[in-house]
Amino acid sequence: MTNSTTPMSPSPRNPDFLLTWDKSLDDLRRILDLTFRLQALHDQGRSLNVFTSGLAISLFRDQSTRTRFSFASAASALGLTVADLDEKKSQLAHGETVRETATMISFLTEVIGIRDDLYLGAGHSYMVEVARALDQAVAEGVLPRRPALINLQCDLDHPTQTLSDLAHLVHTFGSVEALRGKKIAMTWAYSPSYGKPLSVPQGIIALMTRLGMDVHLAHPPGYDLVPDIVRRAREQAQASGGGFTLSHDLNAAFREADVVYPKSWAPYHIMEQRTELLKAGDTAGLEELEQAALQENARHTDWECTDEKLALTRGGEALYLHCLPADITGVSCDRGEVSASVFDRYRTRLYRQARYKPFVIAAMILAGRFADPLALVQDLADNAPPRYRKETRS
Amino acid sequence: MTNSTTPMSPSPRNPDFLLTWDKSLDDLRRILDLTFRLQALHDQGRSLNVFTSGLAISLFRDQSTRTRFSFASAASALGLTVADLDEKKSQLAHGETVRETATMISFLTEVIGIRDDLYLGAGHSYMVEVARALDQAVAEGVLPRRPALINLQCDLDHPTQTLSDLAHLVHTFGSVEALRGKKIAMTWAYSPSYGKPLSVPQGIIALMTRLGMDVHLAHPPGYDLVPDIVRRAREQAQASGGGFTLSHDLNAAFREADVVYPKSWAPYHIMEQRTELLKAGDTAGLEELEQAALQENARHTDWECTDEKLALTRGGEALYLHCLPADITGVSCDRGEVSASVFDRYRTRLYRQARYKPFVIAAMILAGRFADPLALVQDLADNAPPRYRKETRS
Amino acid sequence: MTNSTTPMSPSPRNPDFLLTWDKSLDDLRRILDLTFRLQALHDQGRSLNVFTSGLAISLFRDQSTRTRFSFASAASALGLTVADLDEKKSQLAHGETVRETATMISFLTEVIGIRDDLYLGAGHSYMVEVARALDQAVAEGVLPRRPALINLQCDLDHPTQTLSDLAHLVHTFGSVEALRGKKIAMTWAYSPSYGKPLSVPQGIIALMTRLGMDVHLAHPPGYDLVPDIVRRAREQAQASGGGFTLSHDLNAAFREADVVYPKSWAPYHIMEQRTELLKAGDTAGLEELEQAALQENARHTDWECTDEKLALTRGGEALYLHCLPADITGVSCDRGEVSASVFDRYRTRLYRQARYKPFVIAAMILAGRFADPLALVQDLADNAPPRYRKETRS
Repeated sequence: MTNSTTPMSPSPRNPDFLLTWDKSLDDLRRILDLTFRLQALHDQGRSLNVFTSGLAISLFRDQSTRTRFSFASAASALGLTVADLDEKKSQLAHGETVRETATMISFLTEVIGIRDDLYLGAGHSYMVEVARALDQAVAEGVLPRRPALINLQCDLDHPTQTLSDLAHLVHTFGSVEALRGKKIAMTWAYSPSYGKPLSVPQGIIALMTRLGMDVHLAHPPGYDLVPDIVRRAREQAQASGGGFTLSHDLNAAFREADVVYPKSWAPYHIMEQRTELLKAGDTAGLEELEQAALQENARHTDWECTDEKLALTRGGEALYLHCLPADITGVSCDRGEVSASVFDRYRTRLYRQARYKPFVIAAMILAGRFADPLALVQDLADNAPPRYRKETRS
Repeated sequence: MTNSTTPMSPSPRNPDFLLTWDKSLDDLRRILDLTFRLQALHDQGRSLNVFTSGLAISLFRDQSTRTRFSFASAASALGLTVADLDEKKSQLAHGETVRETATMISFLTEVIGIRDDLYLGAGHSYMVEVARALDQAVAEGVLPRRPALINLQCDLDHPTQTLSDLAHLVHTFGSVEALRGKKIAMTWAYSPSYGKPLSVPQGIIALMTRLGMDVHLAHPPGYDLVPDIVRRAREQAQASGGGFTLSHDLNAAFREADVVYPKSWAPYHIMEQRTELLKAGDTAGLEELEQAALQENARHTDWECTDEKLALTRGGEALYLHCLPADITGVSCDRGEVSASVFDRYRTRLYRQARYKPFVIAAMILAGRFADPLALVQDLADNAPPRYRKETRS
Repeated sequence: MTNSTTPMSPSPRNPDFLLTWDKSLDDLRRILDLTFRLQALHDQGRSLNVFTSGLAISLFRDQSTRTRFSFASAASALGLTVADLDEKKSQLAHGETVRETATMISFLTEVIGIRDDLYLGAGHSYMVEVARALDQAVAEGVLPRRPALINLQCDLDHPTQTLSDLAHLVHTFGSVEALRGKKIAMTWAYSPSYGKPLSVPQGIIALMTRLGMDVHLAHPPGYDLVPDIVRRAREQAQASGGGFTLSHDLNAAFREADVVYPKSWAPYHIMEQRTELLKAGDTAGLEELEQAALQENARHTDWECTDEKLALTRGGEALYLHCLPADITGVSCDRGEVSASVFDRYRTRLYRQARYKPFVIAAMILAGRFADPLALVQDLADNAPPRYRKETRS
């Protein structure tokens, strides 16, 4: 009996979702498909309980409300119990400690979600270390099955966000195919805060270039992303028949764009310095760096998504994206990433964009833990009970 | 299939429970009825699972053990997953931030419980803001269904407490009708601490005057409650045929009372000053205010519920109420709200009074999320499985 | 219907697991038996859901990752909702406060797990106080049923750990009977940290002497355990036909041992002083004591479990035990409890030793809450559904 119901263990496939570029286009399409189906079933009031027990562990090395609730929502929907691994001290744990902790918390665990985007060069490599520890524990017979590992944001990529963004684009434009040739402007935007991660812009250019989109990355001089990922985006665009343009010209990026994604981030070289200073515990140096970075930011307050800028886009009506929360001029700050007028016009659509995330995470869990997640979801559609106990008519 | 099982969305009725005076007497009787039925089913070892998944979010802006566990107990009993929204920084968030956060955490959420009683004029208005954000998100199609919002204590009312108190009174006196004409003394009591919320005394006078009780509010001069609520109590008493008397005389309030509820609170005008100082971040001013308030308190140590005072009540045996924890003379403090002798005699009954709260919260959730919660609970009574797996006889 | 499914309440038996020496050997064998069965069912992908709702409360007065996750795992596996009672302030609560809090959090609670090992003379007595409060609340009709109380580590014993250790020994040597006459060396080991609890060595000598093992306790002069427990170990060894030897000679303890358990702990008299200083809030005194203790520790760096020491054991291949995390020389510290070479060789077995803990806790919950837990688990084996929703073949 258990044969047909036990997830593969050890897995012939990679059960983790760490980077979109580790996954085939088929893998990504499967996640998208699962996302839409799970959301539809949920909206119909159907139960998505696939597990009857088990832990879904979240490890946040950075504050987070939205992603935390998305993870908790996905876990609850699937029947898992959320347990937070609270690592307040943002230690750069390595080696034995990581291996042991990863094993010790995983005996009855189905999925581990990690957010670790504070240190450039550290977040993704930490997740890989955890993944290897779990592989080893399965190989040595210590873990009866392999929990899936999900990247809830690292220094390189933010796949639960970019796949939510993609779901939103597919919903808006009709299909993945319809995105081919569409122009998306991934642009830096001014923010009065500093140290925002690079994972969203990197994730967007690394994902959308694979789908044949015409990706325009624009930022002020010095606000570079991790070079390897920019190179990857360029190569992928060539392979997919899409485009990739890098400039320092916001207007050029917006011109005739179908989609715009103006968002602040810290320059790569600043994040590198910040990582070194954090490792060294150099508080004075960090303070100095922050001041210098904010001063540099302040030279680019014109990188704001206003009605005037949007007018440059296709028909003046490009789809405006943001991962939220946005720095809204006159609302959450004096001067920010986007004008209140633009934000207001797109608010409802931004909320819908965000609403995919719990279902993207649920899809990643199913894809990581089951051999045929689509069949599983089809079975939910055919046979799952309603999520609520029946009310008798009154 | 989903038609008969999906809760109403958007709701024709108000799904929230923010203030008892927003609710009809029928609404309140329904909550009471559900409370008793849910408690009886639970005591019989029956499952109350009505949901198979979904979040129950709690947001506590003030420390709380009892209400937190009551909320968690209710959520667990109904099949929901508790998730805490930790807003350590007691920021007075407004506008866009509230709207966005309320929406972002609610995609798979069935109920949100909020405790926000630190700032006079802020707690209830914050909840209303959240409720409007949720309404709007449903209206715009962002949320597929409207989570219920439950007031776990605000600056005006504490309905989960006062309905537990009411359940206890109904259990003691036999029925809601039996409370008509009964005298209840809601009195201030001395405490060596300061800044206790006004929500309990306000909630009690605003609720019991509607039920035809003869409500006597007594406190030392200066310890006024929010004037609007006192006025409401007076008017309601007139409408219901009950009574409302305000005095500065503890003995008069206790004399021939059937029920006494002696409890400390901070004067309204002190809470107003405190709110201003907190907003201004004036630490020195807050310290000064606290000292002045404690000095004022210390002039009224004779407002203690002793055997001598209780002897004044009907047959010397009025029912003693407290929302717990009480400041007990010689136990939790040198001099407090109640003597150890009185507290000891009523302890078991006080614990029973407190035991209604998880079921009151569960009742509010069902009333907020289902069109016919009584039919639902009847179905639980008829068909729900035991809460425990069956033991085979040994 | 509820008769056959409701756990006994009030219980004719003791529903708590506080100390192994409160339990009969039959009780302990039952826990072991349940542990192995639950683990086997879980590994087969079977559901262990015995509850449909209810709280499992954890109260940790000391930091803990492993035990916290073991408790959460057990609760989730059985269908309970974990709720943390966060008592950050390590107050030594007593009397009314303990009674009231224990009752207030228990209305819908099935199990309470407590870790309280900071104060010598306080942890176990606190748990007894909680147990009495719960008994009283049941007797007075305030609680409809008695939650089980589980010691997750106190100042005297650490039963979830030592029963995991025992499960590991039984798995290794074949049966409880096979342990009779086997030599186990419970020895102090050097650590660069200070203040480690005494509960593991005390728990081991108090448990293994009952099973006829030949227990050798060895530590440097001054590193005594609680005298009562040493006396108990000696008496039990005599009664069971086992042995108990106390020495200050690591080599003698290791010689021809079948099992070695080298682990650091603080001297009993240091823990007593520490408790006094903590109670007095004497920060300077605590700092001074720590320095003195570390200096004393540093005189015994040769108490390290090396290959050379292990060579003294039976065939040079004694089973090495540790409760983890271990202080590993050259890995987690410069000089520690065990060499990297020894640790590496036993790592997989150490992880397996740790893996019993969630199932030991689940077994304790079932034994505490059900009259015939073995019949219950047999019913799970016969009838419980798979833990995962069925995948249709693809």
